[in-house]
Amino acid sequence: MSAYWRIVLASRPAGAPTLDNFRVETGRMPVPTSGQLLVRTLYLSIDPYMRGRMSAAPSYAQPVAVGQTMEGEAIAEVVQSRDPDFHEGDLVRSKVGWCTHAIVDTRHVSRIQPDAIPITAYLSVLGMPGFTAYVGLKVIGQPKPGETLVVSAAAGPVGSLVGQLARLAGARAVGIAGGAMKCRYLMTTLGFDSAVDRHAEDFARVLQELCPDGIDIYFENAGGATWPAVLPLLNRYARVPVCGLIALYNGVSQAGRDWLPDTMLTVLRRSLLIRGFINTEFVSEHYSEFLREIEPMVATGRIRYREHMVDGLDAAPSAFIGMLEGRNFGKVIVKLVQ
Amino acid sequence: MSAYWRIVLASRPAGAPTLDNFRVETGRMPVPTSGQLLVRTLYLSIDPYMRGRMSAAPSYAQPVAVGQTMEGEAIAEVVQSRDPDFHEGDLVRSKVGWCTHAIVDTRHVSRIQPDAIPITAYLSVLGMPGFTAYVGLKVIGQPKPGETLVVSAAAGPVGSLVGQLARLAGARAVGIAGGAMKCRYLMTTLGFDSAVDRHAEDFARVLQELCPDGIDIYFENAGGATWPAVLPLLNRYARVPVCGLIALYNGVSQAGRDWLPDTMLTVLRRSLLIRGFINTEFVSEHYSEFLREIEPMVATGRIRYREHMVDGLDAAPSAFIGMLEGRNFGKVIVKLVQ
Repeated sequence: MSAYWRIVLASRPAGAPTLDNFRVETGRMPVPTSGQLLVRTLYLSIDPYMRGRMSAAPSYAQPVAVGQTMEGEAIAEVVQSRDPDFHEGDLVRSKVGWCTHAIVDTRHVSRIQPDAIPITAYLSVLGMPGFTAYVGLKVIGQPKPGETLVVSAAAGPVGSLVGQLARLAGARAVGIAGGAMKCRYLMTTLGFDSAVDRHAEDFARVLQELCPDGIDIYFENAGGATWPAVLPLLNRYARVPVCGLIALYNGVSQAGRDWLPDTMLTVLRRSLLIRGFINTEFVSEHYSEFLREIEPMVATGRIRYREHMVDGLDAAPSAFIGMLEGRNFGKVIVKLVQ
Repeated sequence: MSAYWRIVLASRPAGAPTLDNFRVETGRMPVPTSGQLLVRTLYLSIDPYMRGRMSAAPSYAQPVAVGQTMEGEAIAEVVQSRDPDFHEGDLVRSKVGWCTHAIVDTRHVSRIQPDAIPITAYLSVLGMPGFTAYVGLKVIGQPKPGETLVVSAAAGPVGSLVGQLARLAGARAVGIAGGAMKCRYLMTTLGFDSAVDRHAEDFARVLQELCPDGIDIYFENAGGATWPAVLPLLNRYARVPVCGLIALYNGVSQAGRDWLPDTMLTVLRRSLLIRGFINTEFVSEHYSEFLREIEPMVATGRIRYREHMVDGLDAAPSAFIGMLEGRNFGKVIVKLVQ
């Protein structure tokens, strides 16, 4: 066990990433110094935000440099500890990156206590995606009984929880997802009130039928072609948390009609709130309350979630590319253990 | 004095309103019943929102019907009272419409006490435009010391107060206005830190130079071509109160590139807040505090304002059309007294 593997950014993508943008490298196993841990990755989280890190364009976080290990959060096991509070075999969650092993600073890890809940849940419904759904809905969306919520990418890890939490708050939940299978899952497994396939030819008409009282919260979790159908349905004082725009991450078409003037006029006439957010803004104020509220409901099965597990670090690039294309069904996680 | 005059909506405009869309009518002087007043209009307020009332399209308020008197707020004098609390000669502010006389219900009037402040101020800096500026900035914009505010239509009645209040809150105020004269007025009379002519060929470059630390609040008070210059300058957590879009009221061009994707990506990456509002949302909570704060500063001249006065009810349509074209310089008020 003297070598480890990692996946680095080989080149920046122009448009949609391809396998050529990634490269597997190996190196000598690193050694922790005081306050550090050597950890072995068990489960690596694959998330849409990683597309942003592959570009040099300025965003809310620094890009990954070409040749650098791809960023990513994982559940990992302590192999060697230089911190008296951590011991071999401890489970932690940390930003280890796309690699089999890593050195992490103990200030930047959180402990995972294995109990009734599978540890991978701490990458999905109880991890960053779940917390994103929770604060976006609670702080910005603010659902009220009887209101109508629409969420895009509804079968993904964020959208799934958004819809379930909206229903727990007494609102109607309408999901937008890619394909009949995901739509069926939303209604039968997650308890959404309705669902509509974003590929449907008569998408705008169906969405309108599913929202007879308009839309009070549009949780924007995908971007792209849904907006023209959503905009005319937004009610006065509707809230639009902008959480993810996966449809735009590979590049933006500026062709076609300009939707901005209609958008701004609707913002004004209906007193809309549009608010972009990154979950980190709310961690200090809301993270412990999130765990306190959601963990028990996950443990009892009252809140459901779904994982899309792939095997082996080598599979990470294709799983990532597939996720950007909507080919996953649930939270994408790379399993590095047998 | 047995006849009165009014201006009615003769037809709905297609695009920019013309004089043909208005018609002067006369009628027999109306008679108040119990709880009503007959009032004589002294000063009629002309405002951009009236363009919306001329269209049949749904908005936050009902359109004016064809043949109906144009809506508008005025300072008026009581001619005949059927309410024991009001007497001939009392001054009130009320939605009398574009007319020389009107019947108003005393539940829908507010008294104006003539004192050190000219009564027309209650249509501008101490009226609806001033209150709009106050709540949009205070509730949504939330300026902090050292921040940079940019406001469009800055020489108008809303923008003028927005900039002055931002400076009182310790922020830098940069105004966008049409023409060198208005820009000079912003800096020399109102104390804005900088101003830029929206017609300037190198508008985007100048705006960037005037905002070396980016923009923390963009008070959207005009709409149209400024957005592409503003968008890249918006800082993380910037706030965009959307108050008016006069550039779009006569119709929306959907040609050219689609600015929505770039806008949404920036909303997400910089955690922006965009919030449309109509001042009425905040009246019950903030109106008395507004008067308490702003009235003394207007009385002492610490807050400045400017009026664009035109003579006679007949002049209302052309004054309104001129305002939509930006040809006014200050709050447009029609004077109906000699």
